[in-house]
Amino acid sequence: MSASIDPAANAAMRAGKLIGVGVGPGDPELMTLKAMRALAAADVIVHFAKAGQASHSRAIVAQHLRANVVELPLYYPVTTELPACSDGYRNALQNFYEAAAAQIAALLDAGRSVAVICEGDPLFYGSYMHLHARLAPRYPAEIVAGVTGMSGCWSAAGMPIAQGDDVFTVLPATLAEGELARRLSEADAAVVMKVGRHLPKLRRALEASGRLSRAIYVERGTTAEQKMIPLAAKLDDEAPYFAVVLVPGWEERP
Amino acid sequence: MSASIDPAANAAMRAGKLIGVGVGPGDPELMTLKAMRALAAADVIVHFAKAGQASHSRAIVAQHLRANVVELPLYYPVTTELPACSDGYRNALQNFYEAAAAQIAALLDAGRSVAVICEGDPLFYGSYMHLHARLAPRYPAEIVAGVTGMSGCWSAAGMPIAQGDDVFTVLPATLAEGELARRLSEADAAVVMKVGRHLPKLRRALEASGRLSRAIYVERGTTAEQKMIPLAAKLDDEAPYFAVVLVPGWEERP
Repeated sequence: MSASIDPAANAAMRAGKLIGVGVGPGDPELMTLKAMRALAAADVIVHFAKAGQASHSRAIVAQHLRANVVELPLYYPVTTELPACSDGYRNALQNFYEAAAAQIAALLDAGRSVAVICEGDPLFYGSYMHLHARLAPRYPAEIVAGVTGMSGCWSAAGMPIAQGDDVFTVLPATLAEGELARRLSEADAAVVMKVGRHLPKLRRALEASGRLSRAIYVERGTTAEQKMIPLAAKLDDEAPYFAVVLVPGWEERP
Repeated sequence: MSASIDPAANAAMRAGKLIGVGVGPGDPELMTLKAMRALAAADVIVHFAKAGQASHSRAIVAQHLRANVVELPLYYPVTTELPACSDGYRNALQNFYEAAAAQIAALLDAGRSVAVICEGDPLFYGSYMHLHARLAPRYPAEIVAGVTGMSGCWSAAGMPIAQGDDVFTVLPATLAEGELARRLSEADAAVVMKVGRHLPKLRRALEASGRLSRAIYVERGTTAEQKMIPLAAKLDDEAPYFAVVLVPGWEERP
């Protein structure tokens, strides 16, 4: 029977599986059992990194990688060097994701299973979703949910973030100052991401919305490099791109 | 030397540790390594449940509990029988949390380590935070972040929820219809929680905000009982309290 199978159809049937694996906020202990099993089973491990830097997600899983597992690092062609709204940025990233998807498609066509490891949760502000959107319509694909960076941060702070009928909002610090202030006023609880060079503006927006005194600044939450300080007590405006600011809700505690 | 230590001071020094353990959205494989270790080490496992029903969080961890581990189930005195804004509801829950905190304090005073297991993430709309607020100022306390229910749902749906500069909002379905519609219009991506009997109202608010066609209805995501359907295709308005509706953002994909 098997001799009569069309080799091309057979190859198509054996296409490898794509898995987007959330590896959590930074502490390797915050990986899930499912993520561990996905890593152990994958033929190829894909990770994103800034050119010239080690991948954060790879560092999280390093101790759990099989010896000699095949790795495919993907280096962003651009991160914060160009404005995200510029055509140059958009085109560079689009070409990057197209090329990365083609590389992974070739692996999947060859029957290899491919795990793309992602800090936090794969479908929550993650680069993986650019690959998922291009490949999931054509290949078997699965997502392993992960603990988000923000959950890691408020847990490390021991700070209840939202409760009951609170409205909770995630805001990029890239928004205009007035817009940030308005949205901070309207939310009971908020997390502001991509803080970086926007910190002076964010500080003013928090002040205008009456939230500065509740705000907590966190860098690299749950990792050995974690920094955490009430924003009002932070005397400088230096912040890396990945820093977050937490604004807890739950003001009326029963 | 040890004979000279004041027994009371010694007892105080040995107060047990309180751990809020996120056990994820439902699939036991979505527990973290850290949660597993916390369960293995705890003297007492505490879980919340609706009176007369099995605890969801206990079901998630069941296969990982030590034989003969001590369990302390906490049964809510009221869930949806009274309006959450009523004095009766507020007082009943306040008394319940006070009594629960006192029970746990007695265990901690006796040097027992206590793990409170929580569906999803402990500090994100979880009951645990009512205990944490009462006990963390007095006892050593730690939080183990977990995969949230909403991450489990959008991952199970394979649906990227938010990207780039999207504003992401979590809304309780208890909000007034106009308020829901306005906030849905203003967010790029949203998750609506506590759907239950509010589904007809939520459906109208999604229609008014132009988001109904993108909305996905999910019950018990990542569990064996998972139900998932585009909300526009769901022909009835039956929904349990814990159902969620996902409204993905990322409308401009590069």
